[in-house]
Amino acid sequence: MMEGRDVPGYDFGAPTVARSPLGSEDLDLLKQTVLFSEEDEEYLRLAGEVLEDQADEVLDLWYGFVGSHPHLIHYFSGPDGQPDDDYLARVRERFKQWIFDTCLRPYDQQWLDYQQEIALRHTRAKKNQTDGVRAPEYIPLRYIIAFIYPITATIRQFLEGKGHAAEEVEKMHQAWFKSVVLQVTLWSQPYVREGDY
Amino acid sequence: MMEGRDVPGYDFGAPTVARSPLGSEDLDLLKQTVLFSEEDEEYLRLAGEVLEDQADEVLDLWYGFVGSHPHLIHYFSGPDGQPDDDYLARVRERFKQWIFDTCLRPYDQQWLDYQQEIALRHTRAKKNQTDGVRAPEYIPLRYIIAFIYPITATIRQFLEGKGHAAEEVEKMHQAWFKSVVLQVTLWSQPYVREGDY
Repeated sequence: MMEGRDVPGYDFGAPTVARSPLGSEDLDLLKQTVLFSEEDEEYLRLAGEVLEDQADEVLDLWYGFVGSHPHLIHYFSGPDGQPDDDYLARVRERFKQWIFDTCLRPYDQQWLDYQQEIALRHTRAKKNQTDGVRAPEYIPLRYIIAFIYPITATIRQFLEGKGHAAEEVEKMHQAWFKSVVLQVTLWSQPYVREGDY
Repeated sequence: MMEGRDVPGYDFGAPTVARSPLGSEDLDLLKQTVLFSEEDEEYLRLAGEVLEDQADEVLDLWYGFVGSHPHLIHYFSGPDGQPDDDYLARVRERFKQWIFDTCLRPYDQQWLDYQQEIALRHTRAKKNQTDGVRAPEYIPLRYIIAFIYPITATIRQFLEGKGHAAEEVEKMHQAWFKSVVLQVTLWSQPYVREGDY
């Protein structure tokens, strides 16, 4: 699971992946801004263990949320206005892999490059291409940012699911929250006017 | 305090304030995306009471954070590279007012318009003008989004400060978190390429 070899359209580390316009100094300043420390890295690794056999339940919850809101499922729908089940299934596997990448991958240049790839796959530049679908051609940035809340709040029950002490759950959750904010910050880059990011 | 009459450059509801490109339907969809409900409105009002006499301590903490990070205090510095104390003091009063607006104002069209005004005051369109200063001409969007974490995490200790039950503190904190994500989402609008927001 961690390597993601069988995940459709997942090509972390491949030469075809986008290059991030940011480097390690930019990342370091963003980490400082979200108070991201080595302790957070440790607790994300613990979260990766805790979530390992719960990832499908996490995805069930997230997909239930998206599926029950017409303004969100819209972005996974075909020209006929109906949800594209094959597209949803392929994205689901990558989204699951994203949980493990968030918890277990080092946040280095290769990871930064893949964040740019993920970013572009939300935009007119690359959405739909990976899966060869005809869904809406971009996800508006407003929903990418707003998703920080549900993706952060809903993970907590799963972090609590393996009997860890309240303090450990809290530290895992804060590390997750910081990482989600950091990643959404990175994903906003291609949406922003030249020079304003 | 709630009305903000003596706050420099604070002109909520004035005819000169920007108009939001969003309307009530857009706001409603964003509220749904961050799971913002009437219960959250109630708990924000409670948070407003809890924070009323702690706002200066909150601002001390936030200003301490910004002041201790050169990449952040930079945006409040003059052409000589030194922090502009008068600018910082004026922004501080508006930032304090923002706490009360977040907790106590109804999120209606007037509020939406003022979010657009706040948004523009972070950008090349309006930064520095309100205070007549010569600081850097915009705050990069990356730091606006990244600030979701510190502004959310640090408020908790103050919400705990008046002896409310753990469950009430948690509900106040979640309501705050949702509101911060919602507002940062609104503040990102002028940064985004035409048609991608």
